[in-house]
Amino acid sequence: MTETTVNKLREHVGEEVVVKGWLYNKRSKGKIHFLLIRDGTGIVQGVMVKGGLPDETFQLGGRVTQESSLVVTGTVRKDDRAPGGYELELRGLEIIQMAKDYPIALQSHGPDFLLDHRHLWLRSRNQHAIMRVRHAAVKAIRDFFDERDFVLIDTPIFTPAACEGTSTLFEVKYFDDKAYLAQSGQLYGEAAAMAHRKIYCFGPTFRAEKSKTRRHLTEFWMVEPEVAFLDLDGVMDLAEEFVEYIVQFVLKTRRVELETLGRDISKLEAVGRPFPRITYTEAVEKINAAGVEMEWGNDFGAPQETALGRRYDRPVMVHRWPARTKAFYMKRDSQDERLALGVDMIAPEGYGELIGGAQREDDLETLEKRIAEYNLPREAFEWYLDLRRYGTVPHGGFGLGLERTVTWLCGIEHLRETIPFPRMLYRLYP
Amino acid sequence: MTETTVNKLREHVGEEVVVKGWLYNKRSKGKIHFLLIRDGTGIVQGVMVKGGLPDETFQLGGRVTQESSLVVTGTVRKDDRAPGGYELELRGLEIIQMAKDYPIALQSHGPDFLLDHRHLWLRSRNQHAIMRVRHAAVKAIRDFFDERDFVLIDTPIFTPAACEGTSTLFEVKYFDDKAYLAQSGQLYGEAAAMAHRKIYCFGPTFRAEKSKTRRHLTEFWMVEPEVAFLDLDGVMDLAEEFVEYIVQFVLKTRRVELETLGRDISKLEAVGRPFPRITYTEAVEKINAAGVEMEWGNDFGAPQETALGRRYDRPVMVHRWPARTKAFYMKRDSQDERLALGVDMIAPEGYGELIGGAQREDDLETLEKRIAEYNLPREAFEWYLDLRRYGTVPHGGFGLGLERTVTWLCGIEHLRETIPFPRMLYRLYP
Repeated sequence: MTETTVNKLREHVGEEVVVKGWLYNKRSKGKIHFLLIRDGTGIVQGVMVKGGLPDETFQLGGRVTQESSLVVTGTVRKDDRAPGGYELELRGLEIIQMAKDYPIALQSHGPDFLLDHRHLWLRSRNQHAIMRVRHAAVKAIRDFFDERDFVLIDTPIFTPAACEGTSTLFEVKYFDDKAYLAQSGQLYGEAAAMAHRKIYCFGPTFRAEKSKTRRHLTEFWMVEPEVAFLDLDGVMDLAEEFVEYIVQFVLKTRRVELETLGRDISKLEAVGRPFPRITYTEAVEKINAAGVEMEWGNDFGAPQETALGRRYDRPVMVHRWPARTKAFYMKRDSQDERLALGVDMIAPEGYGELIGGAQREDDLETLEKRIAEYNLPREAFEWYLDLRRYGTVPHGGFGLGLERTVTWLCGIEHLRETIPFPRMLYRLYP
Repeated sequence: MTETTVNKLREHVGEEVVVKGWLYNKRSKGKIHFLLIRDGTGIVQGVMVKGGLPDETFQLGGRVTQESSLVVTGTVRKDDRAPGGYELELRGLEIIQMAKDYPIALQSHGPDFLLDHRHLWLRSRNQHAIMRVRHAAVKAIRDFFDERDFVLIDTPIFTPAACEGTSTLFEVKYFDDKAYLAQSGQLYGEAAAMAHRKIYCFGPTFRAEKSKTRRHLTEFWMVEPEVAFLDLDGVMDLAEEFVEYIVQFVLKTRRVELETLGRDISKLEAVGRPFPRITYTEAVEKINAAGVEMEWGNDFGAPQETALGRRYDRPVMVHRWPARTKAFYMKRDSQDERLALGVDMIAPEGYGELIGGAQREDDLETLEKRIAEYNLPREAFEWYLDLRRYGTVPHGGFGLGLERTVTWLCGIEHLRETIPFPRMLYRLYP
């Protein structure tokens, strides 16, 4: 008899097959048991009719508990009413292990309870779908850059110095020294872009943020391309092509999962190039016009991002920011020295910032001056300054937060559901 | 005029093109300058003949220094003697920035000097080639699992407890608590395999190893597949198919880079399935027969791995290890309780262990007993024990170290050259 998996049942219609998995849910109506069986690749309904199989097996079907591991034998039937389009007419049931008192019911639990049981919660239908969307987003990200001749550069996690102050950095005892966990690979990416022209890094980054515990993770994944000979317009061209690519790939490969999550797919289908590009100054006007107050010169908070993002049916790029809201390494606008050549991409539907990017300052003396102005420890940046000493060129790049992006793609409320094992202020377990 | 890159010159033979890049090296013979120009995608020789272009430009060509950034204009000529097959007959040269006293000469430097200048050393031809091989290996790894319906699960870096003792763990101050940096994602991967059937994680892992500073990195990348309903034989089948796939992909896509590195490519071409599979007991006999002493019951060290690996022209898999050399979570051999159902894959040519894997203990009571025997903190493993309480199934997986694999693929001596910014006992900069 053929052993197969739920995602391949369509290849075995009319055949008797073996499927190994777990009991997801069960209904019984007198002489019929409906067993919902999940095997990691999908969920299938198995039907047991009393008299259609040994009585002992039918009774076992009545006793089997949620999340017991099992092996079933049955005939594959096409059934358009069944989720997935196929069901199994069961002939055999063997229990590998009978689970007792599985803690997660299919009804609702509070978030703390679910997070305490994240190792089991991952088995739930929606969490399963979210992880598959996350995987597709990661694949789209990597394929996009690989197809365009970017070289992957895995930047270090252990870093010797604070790029932008130590207050949100995690400190590690590094033998007799100390190290900080990287918040960004960008500076290292810049070094690599001078060697490989177009690079990207993609790995976990860390932020010891005490406030905003609901919107932030302490550990999250970020992808950061960096390109030699690229200016701010080029950064925006790359960013919009990239985000469109991710959305298209997820629509193409994870439509079933998006439907499982109840996502309004038409919102994602609207995400096509060109994305609107507006200056920070224009954005401030629009935000105020939308009834959310803000003064020119300040950074956006969540209310401002939401107000602006909701005005568009696709992501909007806001460029040319007040320099004091942005990092030391951003190049200034030659037309107006108060402005930095940075760009933020804000998602529609209130999902906030997806991307932050910039053209980098490429002049040695200007950069030295900025490091002094920002009170940064000069000696920690000597190697970074070398990039401007030896063959400096215009260059730029951006960072995209994976979990923020997946939250938007899935149309869900909580960042913490988009990473397998979320880490937050009071959350380090399991 | 068309702007292009070195890797695309073949599409522009006979045309005048613009190339932006850096001066890699230079030779002058009286009336001719040969400028080796690198642009991140490759290196091309530009030829300047006195009289063939403005005198001022010719003189600039004489003055331009190593690693200056520049823009050249020239006609593409096919030349079979040229590395890459093409050269540029230069008409124009514009300096973006004249570099002064670039610290890395093309002659040899000591390793400490080069590591101190890693941000620049990456530009060197061999380092450039190694990073491209690394990228291809990463792509092969991800493609292999993606094509086979494995789901990517990014396991956490911050972990609450020590899987196998704290002596080689990095400790982090986590707000008012403490956390450890993950040495492996396996236990989390097991949880995810119960949700998705076939998963892999692939990210940085950390080991605070004080000794063996030349062979070890404190931060390195590891890929770890984990599969429900897989036994030890299945783990070995998967491991050999996987390693063959990586080698084939790198041979297909990075032959030029392997040649640059002087790799004996025939050694990699020999790596085809099936790989030999021998028991630990057989391996001990072979190692002793090769003149390297070792007693049954001990783990292999570098001399033992080298002696065994050199006996084969492809990786060899050693299975069924003395349980006391292996971790608590490995299932025991039902034929001989002294043995754990683990497998190590040893590379040929003395490159040591590529893979460590096992079938996992899936019985709750046995696992509880082991945790006690190994003196591990039971409460830290409660969530892991849940996986055996609720629908346990046979399962297994392995881990492959990326840097060890790339060292072998490239045929180089030092692990530290296979990661962009190596981190070691005394190395945290740049």
